[in-house]
Parts: sequence; C-alpha cells; structure tokens
Amino acid sequence: MLENWRKPQRPDEAEVEERLKIAREKLSGQQMKIKEHGLPVLVLFEGWGTAGKGSVLGKVIRNIDPRFFKVATMDVPTEEEKRKPFLYRYFVKIPEKGKFMFLDSGWMDEITQDCLSGNLTEKDYKKKIESVKRFERQLTDNGYLVMKFFFQISQKEQKKRIDALKEDKNTDWRVSGKDDWQNRHYEKCLKVFDRYLNDTNAPADPWYLIDAKNRKWAELQVLEILVSAIDTALKNSAMAVPLLQNVFPLEKIPKLSEIALDKTLTNEEYRKELHELQKKLGELHNKLYRKKVPVIIAYEGWDAAGKGGNIKRITGALDPRGFEVHPIASPEPHEKARHYLWRFWNRLPKTGHIAIFDRTWYGRVMVERLEGFCSENEWQRAYNEINEFEKELSDWGAVIVKFWVQIDKDTQLARFTDRQNTPEKQWKITDEDWRNREKWDLYEDAVNEMLKKTNTTYAPWHVLESNDKKYARIKALKIVIKAIEQELE
Amino acid sequence: MLENWRKPQRPDEAEVEERLKIAREKLSGQQMKIKEHGLPVLVLFEGWGTAGKGSVLGKVIRNIDPRFFKVATMDVPTEEEKRKPFLYRYFVKIPEKGKFMFLDSGWMDEITQDCLSGNLTEKDYKKKIESVKRFERQLTDNGYLVMKFFFQISQKEQKKRIDALKEDKNTDWRVSGKDDWQNRHYEKCLKVFDRYLNDTNAPADPWYLIDAKNRKWAELQVLEILVSAIDTALKNSAMAVPLLQNVFPLEKIPKLSEIALDKTLTNEEYRKELHELQKKLGELHNKLYRKKVPVIIAYEGWDAAGKGGNIKRITGALDPRGFEVHPIASPEPHEKARHYLWRFWNRLPKTGHIAIFDRTWYGRVMVERLEGFCSENEWQRAYNEINEFEKELSDWGAVIVKFWVQIDKDTQLARFTDRQNTPEKQWKITDEDWRNREKWDLYEDAVNEMLKKTNTTYAPWHVLESNDKKYARIKALKIVIKAIEQELE
Repeated sequence: MLENWRKPQRPDEAEVEERLKIAREKLSGQQMKIKEHGLPVLVLFEGWGTAGKGSVLGKVIRNIDPRFFKVATMDVPTEEEKRKPFLYRYFVKIPEKGKFMFLDSGWMDEITQDCLSGNLTEKDYKKKIESVKRFERQLTDNGYLVMKFFFQISQKEQKKRIDALKEDKNTDWRVSGKDDWQNRHYEKCLKVFDRYLNDTNAPADPWYLIDAKNRKWAELQVLEILVSAIDTALKNSAMAVPLLQNVFPLEKIPKLSEIALDKTLTNEEYRKELHELQKKLGELHNKLYRKKVPVIIAYEGWDAAGKGGNIKRITGALDPRGFEVHPIASPEPHEKARHYLWRFWNRLPKTGHIAIFDRTWYGRVMVERLEGFCSENEWQRAYNEINEFEKELSDWGAVIVKFWVQIDKDTQLARFTDRQNTPEKQWKITDEDWRNREKWDLYEDAVNEMLKKTNTTYAPWHVLESNDKKYARIKALKIVIKAIEQELE
Repeated sequence: MLENWRKPQRPDEAEVEERLKIAREKLSGQQMKIKEHGLPVLVLFEGWGTAGKGSVLGKVIRNIDPRFFKVATMDVPTEEEKRKPFLYRYFVKIPEKGKFMFLDSGWMDEITQDCLSGNLTEKDYKKKIESVKRFERQLTDNGYLVMKFFFQISQKEQKKRIDALKEDKNTDWRVSGKDDWQNRHYEKCLKVFDRYLNDTNAPADPWYLIDAKNRKWAELQVLEILVSAIDTALKNSAMAVPLLQNVFPLEKIPKLSEIALDKTLTNEEYRKELHELQKKLGELHNKLYRKKVPVIIAYEGWDAAGKGGNIKRITGALDPRGFEVHPIASPEPHEKARHYLWRFWNRLPKTGHIAIFDRTWYGRVMVERLEGFCSENEWQRAYNEINEFEKELSDWGAVIVKFWVQIDKDTQLARFTDRQNTPEKQWKITDEDWRNREKWDLYEDAVNEMLKKTNTTYAPWHVLESNDKKYARIKALKIVIKAIEQELE
C-alpha cells in the first residue's frame, strides 16, 4: 500500500481551514448519534515516529465530550501484560457501545517492531497476522467501527523533524532511540510496514494512509475520513455476517443421550483417590507455576449437576496464590455494552496461574441462544468465534480443559426437590431453575450442537458423569492432571 | 489454508443421507425467498481436476427451479475474450437479483493456471489478485452473495480417479492433460492454490474448503454451507459499507465556475482544423487497430451542451468497422437487476476498437445521486468503484478519455428555447430537461465533486468549453489525438 501510495492533493490553507471547521463540527454533532445508536468506535493511530500521531489525536478529541471517549497511549507491553496473550492488552481496551476509544499505536506497532528487531520468526509473524485478522473481524462482525490510520512521512521529513526536536533542549526527550533507528533504516521499516498494511487491509476495516507532512492537513484527512465512516456505520443496524467454515481440528464427541450415567464410586474408593489426586495436582501446580504455564478450566452443566462441589475438589488442591475462580452470572451493563467475550478476556489468568470458570463464554450458544438474548446469526457464528478465542489461548500456551457436568432429568428433579425441602439449601434453587428445566430438550439440543462444534483438539470437552458426584469429581481431577502433565512433559 | 486444513469429520452414511435430505429441502425452500428478497447469488466451484466439481454442481442445481439459476462452465478464454479485460468474461456473468449463477471454475482457475504454466510474473499475479479482490469486494458491497468452494482431494485420491477414468474407454476423454499434469506436480499446484486461497480469503466472501473424497459427503458440505450462507444473507437488507480511501493518483481540476466559456473559433479556423484533425485521427485509428489498443471515450455534460454533435465529429473520422457509440439512457430492468457497472462491462470494446459512451457510468454520482435512485452510501462509494473500474481498463491497456461538455446556464436556456420553437428539434427537449435545469446548482455541486474525485492520471477528465460548439469539437479531437499518440509512442 505504501509503496505505490499516491498522496492526496493538499488543498490550499484557506480551504483546509474551512473544511477543518466543517469536519470538526460534524464530528461534534455525531457524538450523540453514536451514543443513541450504541455504536462503539475504535480508532487506531499508527505510523512513523515523529509523524505527529499524538498531536493530531489531541486535536481530534477536542471535538468530543470527555464522557464519550478514552485515549490509550500504548507503550511496549509491561511485564504483567507479557504474561497474558498478545492481544489481551488491546482486547480489554475495546470501547463500550456509544463510545470512542483512541489508541496511540497498537498491535501494528507491536508486531512490526518485533519484526524489525528480529524477535519474530516468519511463522510467528504469520500467526500474529492471523490473530489480528480474527480479532478485527470479530470486532467488525460484532458491530464495532474499527478505524485504522497510518501516518506517513518521508525519510527526509522524518530526519528534519528529529533534528529539529533534538536541537531544542525542551523537546529532545521526544526523540526516542526508535525514531532514530527508524530513520536510519527507513527503507527496511517501510517494507515491514507496507507488508503489515497489506496483510491486514480488510474491506470492513481498511487502512487509511494519512499524508502527515503538514499537521493541519493531516488533522483534516483524519477528521474527514472519520466522520464519513461514522456516517456510514450509523446507517447500519445489526447485520448478519457470513458463517465461516470451521478451520480448527475437531474431535468426535458422543451426544448427551449416549452417555451412560451409571458410573459410581464407593466412599472408600473416592476418599483414597481424592487424597492421592489432590496431592498430585498440588505438586503439578507448583511446576506449572515455575514453568509459567497458564491453565484455564471451564465448567458448564445442568443446574444442580454438581459444578460447585466439583470445582471445590480442584481448588482444594491448589495454592491460593496461584488460582482464581470466576463465577459467571448474567453480564453487567458495562459488560453487555461490549463484545461478549470481553468479560472473559478480562478474566484471563497470568502465565503460571489457573483460572476456573463456573459457567463460561458458552452461555452465548446456550442461554443467550435459547432466551433470545442474541440474534440467530450471533449465536451461530459464536461457535467459530469461541474456537478462535480458545485457539488464541492455546497458541499463547494455555492448557484448556472444558467440562460438561452431566446428570439425567430425574436426578435433577431429585436434587431440586431436595434443595426446595432443605432450608439451608433453598438459596440454591430459584424459579428460573424450574423454568430452565422445562426447556430441557431445547437445551440438550443446544448442548449437543455446542459440544460437536467446539470440541477442538486444543480445547477439548470432557463430559463428567455426575449422577454420582464422587465419580465426577475424581474424573475431573484425573483429566486436569493428565492435561497439565502432557503440557509439562 | 490448504496446508493446515483439517478435514471436517465425515458422518456415517445414514447421517449423510438424512442431512442431505434436509439440506436439499432447505435450498429448495429458499428459492422463493431469494427471489422475493432480490438476492443475487454467485457460486464458484473451484478445485482439483477430477475432484467432482461438476458432479456435485449437477446435484445442487436439482433442487432449484431452472428459472432461477444459470450454470456456466468456464474453459480457457476464447480469442474474443482475450481481447477484453481479464475480468470481463466473469463480470458479464454475474447473476440478476433473485437468481443464482453457478460457475464451474472461474477466475481462480485462470490465475492459478497461468501461474503454474509460468505465464504470469509475480508482479502480474499481484495485480490480478488486486483486481480479484476489488471485483469480489464490489460484488459483496453491492449486495451480492458470493460463495467460493474449493474441492480438495489428495494426490493419491486424484491418481486413483485418473487411473479409473482412463481404464474405461467411455470415460477416458474426461481426463485432461491438465489433470495428469496436476497429479504429477501435486505439491507445486498445492502451493499455488494455497497461496491464491490465502490471498483472496475475505471475511465477506470467505473460501470454503470441501473434502471431496466422497461425493455424497461433498454434496452435503456444499449444500449445508450454501443454505446457511443464504439464510444469513436473507437477514440483511441493503447495508452501508465503509468508504475506502482513494488510492489512485488524482490530478487537480478546476471547478466548473472557474472555467472561462468565452473561447470561440471562426468558421474558417474551424473548418480548416476539423479537416486536418479528422484526417490525423483516421490515420491513428488504423495504427491502434493494428496495435490492438482499445480506446474508451466517455461523454458527460449539461443537457443541450452539444455532446451529440461533438461525438459526430469524432466518429466522422473513424472506420465504421472499428468503433461503436453507446447512447446510455436509464437502465433496462435486467440491467437494473445487476451491479450498476454491469451494463458498461457489457459494452467494452475489443482491443483495437474505440467505444464512445454518450453518457456513462457517472450517472451513478449525478442523476442517480440527485434523484435518489441509489442510497447515499452507494453513490459515495461509487467514486472509488469507478476509479477501480477505470483502473482495470487502464491496466488492460485502454486509452481512456473523459469529456465534460460545459456550457453556462444562459446558453442552455437559449438552446432549450430554440429547440422548443423549432419543430424539427422539439424531440430533443423534454419536460425532464426543464426539471433538471431547475436543479442546476445541485448538479453543479455533484459534477464538481465527481470531477475532483475521479480525475485520475490514467483516466483524466477534460472540460470542453462548449458555449461555442465549434471550439469544443476541435478541442475534443485534439485531446483524443494526443491521448492516442501518447499511447502509440
């Protein structure tokens, strides 16, 4: 893109001023429409060092009420961020519906920087490009307006700016070693930038190249492109997007109805195994902590299937400094206002930690599907979005274990009735549980579809036969242990 | 995509049969919805020789009423097709709204074939990929459902099939030299295919890889993906899409109000120049015919500006076997039912020919814009779509000359009045002309925007000052001559 880029014609100063005035007013007027329409706008400023990204950004936001935007200046990842998946620090920053998020450099800068410093193999580069494309596609598919600006200046212009900044003692701190290096290796950088721009130039969120030689003119280009794109996005209501073909390795998994639920353990067997397995898991927890392997354990299952008790037997074995349990209820308003995976990205463990989710992102294809909390197209494409999400986690190095805690309908009734009749258990049973129970068959179909479509080799499902809770707990421990052992080997 | 592709799990035969039945019925049921919704569906079957594209295609169409679909088997381009732009033979085949078009191989096959036979340089490959991406993006942007299937079989499977076909005298004709060659150079082909699939895998029209080892299973995959995509597409109404930044070289052009219209020629000057210039143009026409250079001359201008008379002075110089004039009125129903550029693709000249358009594709950003025949997003993105269209023509080697025939408002009034009062000219003036005249200022703004946004270096606009028609005619001839001379040099 950069290589055969033609600069747009720069109008004369009077015209720039006039059009700036119009564009600023337009952007200002769009705020409330964005709010009403619930449009989330993510604006990415990328480009050469000293190209003036920050200065233009500063001018753009003057037209927006501070309640409606945030700005993040992304530096090199912190040590904490380095212990999360590559996209984490960007995903957690996506805006709420109706608001702007401006990023002063983002994932492009990180990736191209890694390329230039030789820290990224060709294979890893391609993997990251895949990740970026999925990330951006998920955002636009889910109604985000993603605007990507690249600020372009020539080698000569950059040199001039660097020299000018250096000459003045008040500004010389603004020239980073990176800027200097870029300027000395301009052609090399240009190639890397150009390749990245080409690799990530998607129709739904294309790159916009900004001729950044003149500040006002750069501001005008950004503003005019931005207001035009906002206008376009405001015209759309939620739209259905193509369902992508599965590209992830899936393994066969039996339907729920094919699962025998008669497996049991005696109390003695249970106690003996529990003790041994918990000891083993405790040891492994130390090892993976030292090896910095992140572990994600996801629990789904019928109401009263025994998830809580099962989780307790896992956590009972773990060092409390190295794990978190995340009970997942319906999303809070600020969570609902973002991509549905956002609240899970926000709860990812650090490397070496274990995160246990009591209910998960699979709510999208179960309760949200069946209760109509999302559109058909949304839950249908969620299988792929979730596989992509888990692939990201797996590529990061995470061990992923997903449990479906299975009981039959009679067992559920018995447990519900027991809860109802036992005062200290009554809090555990609600009208909603009874209502859900009425939809058992619909849920079963949805669960079967979910298991089938998301049983990837890198994040497999395991069904825990939990008519006998003891059996299910021991099985869960064994599976978690095996998964960690395989990773540590 | 192919390289790390995981085959979908093939269900057992009973399940395949059952799901086939469901999918066939669904597709059958979707026909009328597609019709009502006005959805155009373009389905591309690509893949290895002997992979069974044709056989699956034959089964898919059994579920559709013949009134609603067409099938085209694309072979190597004919000599006639070779004298048109690369995408011509595909663009003219795009379906009408509410109908299917199935292509048994298409532009992928053509490009990868050229790569494999060494007929395509790396540079030309990239150019063609750009063209394909623009073509497909224009289709999806304009509401087309574009489905791309790639039929995958292993080298071993292909060998088995080729051998089986060859053994039987009744089928050995079905093995082409290409199939044999592919099989012997399987790895090489795989690489080229894979690269192409990656390069053209867009979110709005992704590739779907079909495991084609088993015919029924292949049919099922195609059917299920197709009906799901149709379901998704039917949910959408016309949607606004991002306005892409201009990437084409533009040149400054004055606003209409800045054009001096006092230029005139005496009758003598006119006759002398006309004679000389027409002679010159006639000679050039011969040369470009022999050199096979295509020429496209586009006329736009105010009503009564003198387009017709101007065109006559051009064609008067030309050999009638080597040019066509296309008067463009409002689109016919079958034209309106397709991408608005379709009727112009259909009217492209062969190499060595001259096509003159009396009104053009610029109707999109003038009359269609001002009369509300298209949405704002549609005309706004048309500038880029048109620049892309003309770039395609220019890359093909065409000389493109675009005229805006300019007069002032008083001159128009005088000519209208003259037409009204002269019986033999009355047919030339309609109520619509008077209505358009009332919108002069709106049109002038639209024309200025059009000139500014589409005045590319490869397809520049020329304003013909036509208050004095003679002056305008001589100027037009000079410009056409200069443009052809530059190309022939």
